Amino acid sequence: MRENYTLPRLYVPDDLSADVQIELPRETAHYLTNVIRKSVGDSVRVFNGTSGEWRAEIASSGKKSATLVVAKRLRQPTAVPDVTLLFAPVRKHRTAFMIEKGTELGVRTFQPVLTARTQFPRLNIDKARLQAIEAAEQTERLDVPKIRDAKPLLDILAAWDDTPILFADEAGDAERAREACAKLDAPLAVLIGPEGGFTDAERKELRAIPNVHPVTLGPRILRADTAAIALLSVWQSVNGDW
Amino acid sequence: MRENYTLPRLYVPDDLSADVQIELPRETAHYLTNVIRKSVGDSVRVFNGTSGEWRAEIASSGKKSATLVVAKRLRQPTAVPDVTLLFAPVRKHRTAFMIEKGTELGVRTFQPVLTARTQFPRLNIDKARLQAIEAAEQTERLDVPKIRDAKPLLDILAAWDDTPILFADEAGDAERAREACAKLDAPLAVLIGPEGGFTDAERKELRAIPNVHPVTLGPRILRADTAAIALLSVWQSVNGDW
Repeated sequence: MRENYTLPRLYVPDDLSADVQIELPRETAHYLTNVIRKSVGDSVRVFNGTSGEWRAEIASSGKKSATLVVAKRLRQPTAVPDVTLLFAPVRKHRTAFMIEKGTELGVRTFQPVLTARTQFPRLNIDKARLQAIEAAEQTERLDVPKIRDAKPLLDILAAWDDTPILFADEAGDAERAREACAKLDAPLAVLIGPEGGFTDAERKELRAIPNVHPVTLGPRILRADTAAIALLSVWQSVNGDW
Repeated sequence: MRENYTLPRLYVPDDLSADVQIELPRETAHYLTNVIRKSVGDSVRVFNGTSGEWRAEIASSGKKSATLVVAKRLRQPTAVPDVTLLFAPVRKHRTAFMIEKGTELGVRTFQPVLTARTQFPRLNIDKARLQAIEAAEQTERLDVPKIRDAKPLLDILAAWDDTPILFADEAGDAERAREACAKLDAPLAVLIGPEGGFTDAERKELRAIPNVHPVTLGPRILRADTAAIALLSVWQSVNGDW
């Protein structure tokens, strides 16, 4: 077990250094004082995504407010490997799941992509960002993944550099996931299509990009969220920070 | 794309052979006629878990009933590798998720285990079985995973044979998942503890079993459902049927 592991862990947007005082956002203050019932003098851990992890102490607390004083640094900053998840938004709870699991599995950037068969293009980005923060708190990450605004897949591909894209392709001459993952270091992107798959036109555009690697994830049909989690797990295990 | 891939796919409990007539269960009939609006003469695919996949035609349909006549076999029976997922039940929607994803990732048997820190021991087994059937229909499996009744972990371990158990262990001298997976063929079990982890006593019992392999899934703390999906994905990719 890591030192101080049992202390509550909170994301804060503030700069962090010793003796700095932090006014917690209302929601975080509510969680701290009313949900997990901490009070003045109790210790917590805080991180802001760039400055590592710090121990802090509750200096004051009201019904919907709380102030912390930062004490000492517990962990130096580290970041996850540079992995981008390009994904077509799916049903609300499945997208939430993809954000949570992707954060645990070390996605640095989430890029929602709109494809011809995307059935749920309306993604609540603010909510997704909160889900990513909550997952980062829980999974003991020191950085928080970026969630970009949704964009059409073809626009993304038109501006793409030569970063390798691993994509789960149900049709055609795909390589085994393990073998493709073994060849590809970060920076890397993983692309997961909508439930109905990509159109022939999209597949053609994709195959025209340098460094695109279609892979197969076995004989069963996987849902989009399963494919995302599975492919991220295999890459982390074979060539990532596991 | 597989032949007949776009036809609806239904699990039926009946024996399957050419010209057999099947009375669909009420719920399945409702789904077929009212949800996806199929009618007399339309084709579907059916499977019963042991006889492969068959084409069938709707012979009659009422408001809450439907009869099929089985035509010809489309696929011979195949089974997933013999993998058992031993898991401590977690919150309802996370357990549902684990059943769905485990079915897609080729779990043959789900064995719920009760551990000292299991917070949600009440698992609705009938509902879990329906979730597994629905996932099997969707993922194009020809068999349906078994879901056993929940049992205390220590009872399971006391009766365990020498089937290897891969278990996600946050503490101690664990091997990397990829390396452990590369050594272990099916039959195999994957063990995932509750959110609070195993107790020292449980860990001691576990380590005393021959052929137990503690593995690490990287530097981030994974939720129980994430760990299950990740470890199953890595094993399938490295040594399973992917």
